[in-house]
Amino acid sequence: MTIFQELEMYKNFDELATDLLDLAKEILPEQFIFLSSINDTQQVILKFSNDNTSIDVTEGTIVNLNDTLCQHIDFGTKQPLIYEDVSKESSLGDFKNILEKANIKSYLGIPISFVNGEKFGTLCAVNDQVSRFDEKSIHLLQRIVRMFSYYLDLERFAYRDALTNLYNRRYLAKFFEDHHDSGGTVFFLDLDGFKGVNDLYGHDAGDMVLEEVASRLLKFIDGYEDVFAVRLGGDEFVIHFSQPTSAERLSEMATRLLDSLMTWDDDFQLSASLGIATYSINSEIDLKTLLKNADFALFQAKKSGKNAYQFFETEKIV
Amino acid sequence: MTIFQELEMYKNFDELATDLLDLAKEILPEQFIFLSSINDTQQVILKFSNDNTSIDVTEGTIVNLNDTLCQHIDFGTKQPLIYEDVSKESSLGDFKNILEKANIKSYLGIPISFVNGEKFGTLCAVNDQVSRFDEKSIHLLQRIVRMFSYYLDLERFAYRDALTNLYNRRYLAKFFEDHHDSGGTVFFLDLDGFKGVNDLYGHDAGDMVLEEVASRLLKFIDGYEDVFAVRLGGDEFVIHFSQPTSAERLSEMATRLLDSLMTWDDDFQLSASLGIATYSINSEIDLKTLLKNADFALFQAKKSGKNAYQFFETEKIV
Repeated sequence: MTIFQELEMYKNFDELATDLLDLAKEILPEQFIFLSSINDTQQVILKFSNDNTSIDVTEGTIVNLNDTLCQHIDFGTKQPLIYEDVSKESSLGDFKNILEKANIKSYLGIPISFVNGEKFGTLCAVNDQVSRFDEKSIHLLQRIVRMFSYYLDLERFAYRDALTNLYNRRYLAKFFEDHHDSGGTVFFLDLDGFKGVNDLYGHDAGDMVLEEVASRLLKFIDGYEDVFAVRLGGDEFVIHFSQPTSAERLSEMATRLLDSLMTWDDDFQLSASLGIATYSINSEIDLKTLLKNADFALFQAKKSGKNAYQFFETEKIV
Repeated sequence: MTIFQELEMYKNFDELATDLLDLAKEILPEQFIFLSSINDTQQVILKFSNDNTSIDVTEGTIVNLNDTLCQHIDFGTKQPLIYEDVSKESSLGDFKNILEKANIKSYLGIPISFVNGEKFGTLCAVNDQVSRFDEKSIHLLQRIVRMFSYYLDLERFAYRDALTNLYNRRYLAKFFEDHHDSGGTVFFLDLDGFKGVNDLYGHDAGDMVLEEVASRLLKFIDGYEDVFAVRLGGDEFVIHFSQPTSAERLSEMATRLLDSLMTWDDDFQLSASLGIATYSINSEIDLKTLLKNADFALFQAKKSGKNAYQFFETEKIV
């Protein structure tokens, strides 16, 4: 899942983004101001202040990160990047041509991060004139951005599991509501022997195991497209794939996933069992039934001796 | 627990409160601005803008809510309360004398609520001169307050259980760290038959039960001083009492609590078992040990036939 898709789920994003821009506009009335979201390769213009300008930006525009000044922002130091007169910045080299074409003469970019340091995007002020940014205005903007970033964290929290930072059941439900027409596959996973760890080594050890499982799941899904991992609660996890995949390929993936959850230090006797349920494009299945099906397959996998996977097949239930 | 005590746990409260006041001061440079927290009877001045004024307010001041203009704010509509010239407000009656003594000639109060609508407090601008508040400034302040309230929610979230809105394990740990010198008692509670509900009726039914337990716990602690309820996870709950209480009285309370958790609709076969552990003033016990002790007593209660309570007694463990 990308941050762009996640944003669509944020309940009050539009309202707060408007607040942010209005406040920024109040502080820098001369500037063209926009809010963007950034990942490793791209920048999306999410919202901009409403005004006349010769600068060509549209909401929803996706820019290659290499083609934007925001790529130079240092998210580590959280410091703003300031070019009061782009033409005088020798460090920009050939990039100045791009800026000239876009009619950008000055630039102020303030980094926006989640509280855990993860990159969110930028609040930017650009102008078709050379500008002078006073320290006080920049400072005020940074304060507003800081408040905004707490809001972002709150929205994100609502869809995340507090312990593992994976998505939670609420996210899965929302995603399914919005996208179930496209079909997909769920891996429903639960640990074999988890209760033993809790009973023998205490809840702290149990929590550590769950965090480690989460990190292995993230490693597992890394590299697949349109996939995300969820902690449903306790030691139950779900991986949701949106891409259609053959049963053969799913078996291969299931084996690899179970293998990755077999080896544990500290004498923990742990493995995982896995139920797989697929739903087709335009299927009318609801999430509850889908999860129940996958859970039933999981139950079969457990019965067959644990550390195993099973596909859900309708005839097995009848 | 009061909101005032809870605020002390908020990690970035001081920083964000300063941001809020600085931004407000930027918008209303002529005003004396302060941030307050309000409960049903009192107002606490948490922070104010640094400046010279003839108005006598100090951080930490606790005011009887009846003696403050903020009592008139309508938290339902979330609208600001505005008196540009207090002397001309006939609705204020005798209260005008109090304001005159305090040298308050004008007042602007913006309500601050949590996202669930619960009252937090106010952002106020007062002046020893008659003032004129323009609509635009008020609007900007409302936007900043809105962002600030999302921040408040985020802090609160970190110490709350998402399902039941009770405090979570993290809150208990922080509270214990800050207050364990004072001694207290924990009720460690877990449901009898909860797995059966989950297995027979599904997780939704299980979640409903947990929410209902939370609401019964809140009802139970209502009326006691210095007490709060925690969901540790799963169907495990803790009630922490700070006031010293006799064993006899605790037995009485335990019986009443267990009774309140015995009756269920929908054929749910549920009750609760309870372990009680007390720690004395200046005891050096850590939370882990305290909970383990209470959990051991709980285990004894279960063994004795469920729907029962047991006190932790050291000799039993040896």
